[in-house]
Amino acid sequence: MDAASIPAHNGPAVSRAAAADVIASVRSSAPLVHCLTNVVVSQFTANVLLAAGAAPAMVHSAQEAGALARVAGGVLVNLGTVTSVTAEAMRVAVKEAAGAGRPWVLDPVAVGPLPWRTDLARELLESAPPAVIRGNASEILALDSGGTGGRGVDSTDAPEAALDAAIALGRRYGCAVAVSGPEDVLTDGTRVVRVANGHLLLQRVTGTGCSLGALVAACTAVTGDALLAATAASGLLAVAAEIAATGSAGPGTFAVALIDALYELSPDRLARDLNLR
Amino acid sequence: MDAASIPAHNGPAVSRAAAADVIASVRSSAPLVHCLTNVVVSQFTANVLLAAGAAPAMVHSAQEAGALARVAGGVLVNLGTVTSVTAEAMRVAVKEAAGAGRPWVLDPVAVGPLPWRTDLARELLESAPPAVIRGNASEILALDSGGTGGRGVDSTDAPEAALDAAIALGRRYGCAVAVSGPEDVLTDGTRVVRVANGHLLLQRVTGTGCSLGALVAACTAVTGDALLAATAASGLLAVAAEIAATGSAGPGTFAVALIDALYELSPDRLARDLNLR
Amino acid sequence: MDAASIPAHNGPAVSRAAAADVIASVRSSAPLVHCLTNVVVSQFTANVLLAAGAAPAMVHSAQEAGALARVAGGVLVNLGTVTSVTAEAMRVAVKEAAGAGRPWVLDPVAVGPLPWRTDLARELLESAPPAVIRGNASEILALDSGGTGGRGVDSTDAPEAALDAAIALGRRYGCAVAVSGPEDVLTDGTRVVRVANGHLLLQRVTGTGCSLGALVAACTAVTGDALLAATAASGLLAVAAEIAATGSAGPGTFAVALIDALYELSPDRLARDLNLR
Repeated sequence: MDAASIPAHNGPAVSRAAAADVIASVRSSAPLVHCLTNVVVSQFTANVLLAAGAAPAMVHSAQEAGALARVAGGVLVNLGTVTSVTAEAMRVAVKEAAGAGRPWVLDPVAVGPLPWRTDLARELLESAPPAVIRGNASEILALDSGGTGGRGVDSTDAPEAALDAAIALGRRYGCAVAVSGPEDVLTDGTRVVRVANGHLLLQRVTGTGCSLGALVAACTAVTGDALLAATAASGLLAVAAEIAATGSAGPGTFAVALIDALYELSPDRLARDLNLR
Repeated sequence: MDAASIPAHNGPAVSRAAAADVIASVRSSAPLVHCLTNVVVSQFTANVLLAAGAAPAMVHSAQEAGALARVAGGVLVNLGTVTSVTAEAMRVAVKEAAGAGRPWVLDPVAVGPLPWRTDLARELLESAPPAVIRGNASEILALDSGGTGGRGVDSTDAPEAALDAAIALGRRYGCAVAVSGPEDVLTDGTRVVRVANGHLLLQRVTGTGCSLGALVAACTAVTGDALLAATAASGLLAVAAEIAATGSAGPGTFAVALIDALYELSPDRLARDLNLR
Repeated sequence: MDAASIPAHNGPAVSRAAAADVIASVRSSAPLVHCLTNVVVSQFTANVLLAAGAAPAMVHSAQEAGALARVAGGVLVNLGTVTSVTAEAMRVAVKEAAGAGRPWVLDPVAVGPLPWRTDLARELLESAPPAVIRGNASEILALDSGGTGGRGVDSTDAPEAALDAAIALGRRYGCAVAVSGPEDVLTDGTRVVRVANGHLLLQRVTGTGCSLGALVAACTAVTGDALLAATAASGLLAVAAEIAATGSAGPGTFAVALIDALYELSPDRLARDLNLR
C-alpha cells in the first residue's frame, strides 16, 4: 500500500500521445461538465473549460443538481465555499451521477483543518466512488488520515510527500488521485505518473487548481481511464501555463494569457511539450 | 401569431440612430441596474455595466431585494445558479419592481431541461409581465412550449427557429423578446428586428449572454420602448465584440478587450457600425 | 468629536516609510486573510490578495467560518451580497475572531438605504469592535447616523464630508475608519491622514473598493496600528492604480494591469510615490 510497492515501468505510466488524444477528444466532443464549485473561481473555471473546448454548466440547487448530473459528461464537486445549501446539491449530484454511470471528480479544498467539510468529503466518497480526487498534498494527506491526526496537514507539503496517501486513497475508492504542485504526482493505486511542467505564477492566480479539477472532469467524460484523464488535464494546464508565462508581466496578464493558451494549444504541441515521468 | 403575420417594413423596425441614442442616455444618466444574477457571471456582468456607463447593484436576499428593486432603473432576473434562497429574492424583486413601475428583464438560463427553474420562470412571468425576455433560441422555445414538450429544446437551435415562439411570448406578456445567437432576432410581438453584428469568440467567454441581459435592463431604464432597449443593448455588445476581436489572441484577451470596447465605443460609431435588418 | 478637535501635526499622521514597511511585511509573511465577501468580487479580491503577497481563504458557512477566523491573520466581513445564510457565518466569524484576538475589518457595502444590512452591520460592530471600518463616504455617514436619518446618504458624498462621522465611529468602536474616494480620508478618532493617490478608472472596475477592504485586513495581520494598516493598504492600491493606468486602453486592460502592478510594486517605490497628507 505504498509507493515502493508500485512496479517500475519502462517509461511513464501514461504516454504523451494518449494524453494529447484525450485533449483532442475534449475539443471535438465538447462534453458538458457540471460544476458544483466555489463562488471564488466559478467564472475562471467556466472560462478555462470553454477555452479547452468543453461546455460548462453550473447549477447549485438540490432541486436541479441531480437532473443535470444525469446528463453531464462529467461532474465536479469542489468544496471551496460549500454551505449547507450547496452541500445538499452535492449529495444529490453525486448520487444521481453514480446512478447514471457518470464520472464525478472531488476537489477537497481545505479538507483537514475544517472538520465539517472533511466529514462531507468522506460522506460523498463513501456514497459513490469518484473517478478522480484532485487536491494539493495537504488535502490528500488529510483525506487519507481518517481524522486520526496521524499526519501533519501543512499547505507546504510537497506532492511527493502525499504519494503514499494518494495510493491508499486510489486503492480504497478505486479511483485516480492527482496531487497538484510544482510537479504533479498522479496515481490510481497501481500506476504512478508525474507531470513535470508548469509555472510558479499558477500559484498567484486564484482558481488555477480548482479549474484543473474541472478540466479533469471534462477529460473523464471522454476516457474511462481515470489516471489518463487526470494526467491529460494536468498536462494541458501545466503546458499552457508555460506558454502563458512567456511575456507575462505578472499574475494579471498571466491569467489572461493562460486562457488564450488553453484555447490555442494544439494536441500535437501538447504531445511534444508534455514532460511525463 | 407567427412571423408571417408581421407586416413588412421599409427598413428595420428599429433605427440605428435611435439605438445609439439609447446608449448615449445610459452613459449620461448612469441608471442603477439591480442584478439578481448567477454567481458565475456576476463580476463580468458588473464590469460590463460599468464599462457601458451604468451602475450595477447586486443584492440577493429576500430581505433586501424589494427595497432595491423599487429604486432601480431596471431589474435583471437571471436564473443561472438560482437556489431556493435566491428564488425568494427574485419573487420579491419582481413584485416590488412591478409595483413601483420599474421594468424587469428575465434571462431564463437553462429553462427547458430543468423543470424547477422552468416553473419558476413561468411563475415570475405570470406574477408581473417583464419588459424584456432575453435568452438563446432553445430557452425561448422551451419557455413558449408550456411544458408540453411539443418542441425540441436543443442548444443548437438557431435564433430564427425561435421567432414564432418569441412572437407568441411577446404577445402573451406584452414584452419584447430577444433571441441571442450569431444573428440576434428581436420582437415585441408586432415588430421584428435583427442585429447582424457580433463575433464567434463571444461564445467562448462565460457571461457574455448573461451580461447582455444586464445591458438590456440598463437600456429599459432610459426608454419605454422595450424592443428599442433590447436592440440597443444587443447592438452595443455585438459591435463591441467586433472591435474587441481585432487583435485578440484568444478568449482571454478578447474578454478584456470587450470591456475596453464597451467603455470606448461612442454612440456615433455605434450608429455607423450597427447592422440592423 | 469632530475634525476641528484633531490637533495639527507636523507632516502626515502616518509616515510613508512605515506604510511601505507594512506592505513589505505582508509580502514576507503571507498572512492568511479570511474573506466573508460578496460573490461579485470574490475572484478579483482573491487575485488582489495573491498579487500583494497575502493568502486568501473564503469560507461562507456558519459551520466553518469560526474555525478559520480563529487561525486567520485578519478577517474581512463585506456585506455586498449577504443573505441570511452568510449573515450567520459572519456573526460566528466575528465572534471567534474577537475571542482569538484576531483583527476583523468591516466593509459596510450599501449600508444606509438597505435597513436589514444596516442593522446587521451595527449588530456586528456591537458584538466585537473591528480593527478597521472601510467604506465610501455615504456608507460611513449612514453607519454613524444611527438610523435617525439626520444625514443624507448620497453616493456622491465626498470623503471629506464623512470625516466627522468617521471620527465619531473611530472613537465609538476604538477602530480606524477608512473613507475611500478620489482622495482617501482615514482616521482612528485621534489622527487623520489622507492618501492623495489613485486613478478614476478604479471606479469603473467592480471590486476595487471591496478588494481594498481585503488588503486592509491583510495589513492588520502584520501591525497592531490599525490606522497604519488601513493607510498602507489604501496607499498600495492607489499607487498601483496610477501605475496600471499608464498605457491602459480602458477598464478591462486597467483591471489586469492593476493585478500586475500590485505584484510588482516594491515597498521602496511605494515609499517614494505615496502621497500622504
